[in-house]
Amino acid sequence: MAAPARRRTPARAARAAGPLITLTSDFGVRDPYAGIMKSRIFLRAPGLAVVDLTHAITPFRPEEAGYWLYCCLGQFPAGTVHVAVVDPGVGGERAIVVLRAAGQLFVAPDNGLLGLVAQTCPQSRAYRVTSAALDALGLAPLGATFHGRDIMAPLGAELATGRVTAEQIGPPQVLAAGALRPAEEAPNGALCGTVALIDHYGNCLTTIPAAAVGARRHVRLRSDARALRLVRTYEEAAPGECVALINSASMLELAVRQASAASLLNARPGQPVYLTES
Amino acid sequence: MAAPARRRTPARAARAAGPLITLTSDFGVRDPYAGIMKSRIFLRAPGLAVVDLTHAITPFRPEEAGYWLYCCLGQFPAGTVHVAVVDPGVGGERAIVVLRAAGQLFVAPDNGLLGLVAQTCPQSRAYRVTSAALDALGLAPLGATFHGRDIMAPLGAELATGRVTAEQIGPPQVLAAGALRPAEEAPNGALCGTVALIDHYGNCLTTIPAAAVGARRHVRLRSDARALRLVRTYEEAAPGECVALINSASMLELAVRQASAASLLNARPGQPVYLTES
Amino acid sequence: MAAPARRRTPARAARAAGPLITLTSDFGVRDPYAGIMKSRIFLRAPGLAVVDLTHAITPFRPEEAGYWLYCCLGQFPAGTVHVAVVDPGVGGERAIVVLRAAGQLFVAPDNGLLGLVAQTCPQSRAYRVTSAALDALGLAPLGATFHGRDIMAPLGAELATGRVTAEQIGPPQVLAAGALRPAEEAPNGALCGTVALIDHYGNCLTTIPAAAVGARRHVRLRSDARALRLVRTYEEAAPGECVALINSASMLELAVRQASAASLLNARPGQPVYLTES
Repeated sequence: MAAPARRRTPARAARAAGPLITLTSDFGVRDPYAGIMKSRIFLRAPGLAVVDLTHAITPFRPEEAGYWLYCCLGQFPAGTVHVAVVDPGVGGERAIVVLRAAGQLFVAPDNGLLGLVAQTCPQSRAYRVTSAALDALGLAPLGATFHGRDIMAPLGAELATGRVTAEQIGPPQVLAAGALRPAEEAPNGALCGTVALIDHYGNCLTTIPAAAVGARRHVRLRSDARALRLVRTYEEAAPGECVALINSASMLELAVRQASAASLLNARPGQPVYLTES
Repeated sequence: MAAPARRRTPARAARAAGPLITLTSDFGVRDPYAGIMKSRIFLRAPGLAVVDLTHAITPFRPEEAGYWLYCCLGQFPAGTVHVAVVDPGVGGERAIVVLRAAGQLFVAPDNGLLGLVAQTCPQSRAYRVTSAALDALGLAPLGATFHGRDIMAPLGAELATGRVTAEQIGPPQVLAAGALRPAEEAPNGALCGTVALIDHYGNCLTTIPAAAVGARRHVRLRSDARALRLVRTYEEAAPGECVALINSASMLELAVRQASAASLLNARPGQPVYLTES
Repeated sequence: MAAPARRRTPARAARAAGPLITLTSDFGVRDPYAGIMKSRIFLRAPGLAVVDLTHAITPFRPEEAGYWLYCCLGQFPAGTVHVAVVDPGVGGERAIVVLRAAGQLFVAPDNGLLGLVAQTCPQSRAYRVTSAALDALGLAPLGATFHGRDIMAPLGAELATGRVTAEQIGPPQVLAAGALRPAEEAPNGALCGTVALIDHYGNCLTTIPAAAVGARRHVRLRSDARALRLVRTYEEAAPGECVALINSASMLELAVRQASAASLLNARPGQPVYLTES
């Protein structure tokens, strides 16, 4: 082929792309709440690119939202702002926070949602949103039940456009740990993680990152279960064989080619996963 | 925090935001009909911000769409155009109408969908879309089955960009009343409304607006049922307690903290709701 | 009404509208994969209009995606790029292809997805995406499991902006035929098609295009079934009557007014449909 224009690296393109904001919630797809949040974003940042990650988080399970955001680390342009609203404690004592981690900004309630991202990004810093900051931005909460609309979405828009920085939002905050912890190495050398999510295809997504796998090649869903092979692509699995592979988010995943691994393994979120050399 | 730029009120920001168009339908999320409508919008108004409210209206129940639009009154920038396509009578006698109400424009079939919005906005005015207007806009209907695509979406785009006004579209029309009526005060002082919708969380959304509540604090789903407390936030409810509160759309809602009020109360759309002082 | 500006034909408006890209997949609406694809598009083409057709294709059934794209022929502006990712063979031998047909471009795996579009557009030409082309665009695949993100979405963006053409992407390719074939005329004059899809309303969408109907007016789902009437609009059907009509995509469809034809007829994708004169 003839050489098309100049070669663009993702990083170089990112700088040209302008800010991007993503939305994650447990609003579902039946109700207009996500659309209402978007109207608040466009009100403050016309023309901002808004991308829905998912609005189908299991209601009241912030750790699911946090896991997807963890999987998205490194997948979005530098400066992307992720707004995540899984907020059963809305109107109560929980803080709203802004997290700076891995070149991205995250806006969410401090209910464990951002624990996994913060714990796995050593340079991350979180800030608690203060009343004074909200007031300065014209964001005195209008209601007591929908801070996604009244605070988090417009605050995300202000951060994305650069009119305010995370550091201007309030004092540093140590984030609440969530229900999902980073994978850990056991004394026997095994890597111990957790089934974090079952996706739409029935794949079992775990908390074990590719970078931690090392020479380990045997994966067990329960410590006494038969080991699954670690393969490179879905195509390498035999029909009906459950395998493990490194997925597109660089995480260990249990999968069956063109079928549901979760059904075959009777897997559920929260179950431990073991990765060993033999 | 350092003062970020100047303070922006929503109203001021709205004027800068450029036109916004929202889409509501019963198309579901499995079929490409909503995407096809968007292509017709972008064809006439490149760069227009298009926001999906919901495409999960119960098929053939226009009053559900109308209720969500009623809940969105005051939530979108001035000049927003809402296109709502729940249109079982497409190809038949029903008119297509444009309603101007509360600083917004609404485009929909005249099948009761816009009845609640029109009845609750005293200054509202509706216009029937004429063949002559369609012809002048190059909108002679191409098909007999998808006026959302062939008429309502492109007409919404023309209205959003200001190339045509509601008043230019046709003669005034008295809109059909829908299955949902505004809440009414009974002779005994009780406020009588209706369960309009069950949302994704199982909350029961009613037709009773915050402004009508007054000193009333006791809510009953059936006239003989035990009264529910009116609280301010979901957090104030005891575990398992069904409460009433004013939701983010300023409507009375029945809710259980982190659970489904509809399941607990065995509630269904259409049931009456009573609000009394004692 | 006063004459609004000048009359715009869709074709004229299309030239002004700027490029449009559509997305079709089997990702579902629960997982963030579609949003991640969009981030790759905005990275290379900020401001490009991206329209979701559907992400609810039955997992691993590429022919469903191909059928919706076939239905969309003629419905999108000239130059629209359609990216379709139903890709059970990702990481295996199947090629990625670019198809130029009916004034549109299509990017998809060569697994039968584009067979119906290619077979029904006589002037269509397909090209196989080569490693050299990917390399020149900075698209060496990063992972082995998500070519929608790593190749097809960014390639679609490059095609939409015109920085690369289909012809520059690789050598001509004869596309794999899919599970759905174009409707055919039998020796007895009957037109024989297939139920391709059941839509959200329960309508049965077939492979028979309006242009092939001719004088035939009797539709049967099985060759021995009672014939259904061919009508013009849903409104013409009697309550409970199953009818056939030409739908908004100019395809023959079996429908029941405000009810599910699929339930009434016990219809399933893959069943034959016959259209005869008597």
